[in-house]
Amino acid sequence: MELQEKLNWRYATKAMNGDVVPEEKIERILEAARLAATSSGLQPFEIMVVKNKKLKEKIKAVGWNQSVITECSHLLVFAAWDTYTEDRINYMFDLTNEIRGFKNEGWENYRQQLLNSYPQKEAEENFNHAAKQAYIALGHALIAAAFEKVDSTPMEGFDANAVDEILGLRQKGLRSTVLLPLGYRKPEEDWLSDLEKVRKPMDHLVTVID
Amino acid sequence: MELQEKLNWRYATKAMNGDVVPEEKIERILEAARLAATSSGLQPFEIMVVKNKKLKEKIKAVGWNQSVITECSHLLVFAAWDTYTEDRINYMFDLTNEIRGFKNEGWENYRQQLLNSYPQKEAEENFNHAAKQAYIALGHALIAAAFEKVDSTPMEGFDANAVDEILGLRQKGLRSTVLLPLGYRKPEEDWLSDLEKVRKPMDHLVTVID
Repeated sequence: MELQEKLNWRYATKAMNGDVVPEEKIERILEAARLAATSSGLQPFEIMVVKNKKLKEKIKAVGWNQSVITECSHLLVFAAWDTYTEDRINYMFDLTNEIRGFKNEGWENYRQQLLNSYPQKEAEENFNHAAKQAYIALGHALIAAAFEKVDSTPMEGFDANAVDEILGLRQKGLRSTVLLPLGYRKPEEDWLSDLEKVRKPMDHLVTVID
Repeated sequence: MELQEKLNWRYATKAMNGDVVPEEKIERILEAARLAATSSGLQPFEIMVVKNKKLKEKIKAVGWNQSVITECSHLLVFAAWDTYTEDRINYMFDLTNEIRGFKNEGWENYRQQLLNSYPQKEAEENFNHAAKQAYIALGHALIAAAFEKVDSTPMEGFDANAVDEILGLRQKGLRSTVLLPLGYRKPEEDWLSDLEKVRKPMDHLVTVID
């Protein structure tokens, strides 16, 4: 199956060659992230696409000095909402009404239900929830990149507060959650490139309840 | 592009027709989840595949009575590790050594680094981290299902403690995080099936930093 082939082709690339990924490929990867399902359709995250070399250097310095951060072509920073606010919820519900061209009572009741729950919760709980939604989009971006024959490296090993500071995310109500450098593998400098992919066997992952 | 087509075809199906999804399709969807990247490769989750009607009924009762829970063919329950333990970490590192056929000093140092951090953290923090990894796999499963022309409905609207109880997850060190009914759409009973997909525009999602 084609998808499985793509999933086996990709790996967490540890060295990239600096070649630039064409913008149309980046756009299709971002489009896959944009189309990801999210809880209540709120899409509670944004993606920073860092091309600037100096910013990449700064992020590398707070990212365990991992070389792909600067060797990549485009560095995606998935940044989740720091919390759910009334404005953010209303934006998505209003957008839905606008796109679909009508108001629906059930939908408006659901809006009220969310307005009466999320904004009252602790910001940290909301951020954790938003971050999970960003990871669905991350899962989409990983697959989309493989379809574009673009390498990618999902990375949590960085100082999130420092990246927030470097990119001014907190002022925007955002917090960085995961990085995804996009570029092209450089196998001759990558210790991981020849090693077999390791996944736990299916019977450790799945339990069928008949 | 093919992937984009699949992403536009899928939607959070609100009514399914009860038809059974062939096992080989389910297997390929699970394989996509199994191949998902996870932090340090730990794959900190399991997937329960519920086919049993009585169990689906019980879960529906604690899942806002959403009909897809019983109308679906296979109900996937993504269950994240309740925490990271030494055993769980060692299992994945040992498996890696076994599959790759050698021990590597850098890798063993990394094992120690994880053993010296995760197990000492609060279970709740670890669970939140594990759940995010499960959402990457969820993102993969959503796409794989679309490639199989199988409908799916990611669902967070359920009482997680009750589902844990029904499936005996806590005893296994697991906590349910998200449900994914798999089946076939029944458009004539689905209020959502004819409505346009709503996503925020690209300029609300993405900021390019040149």
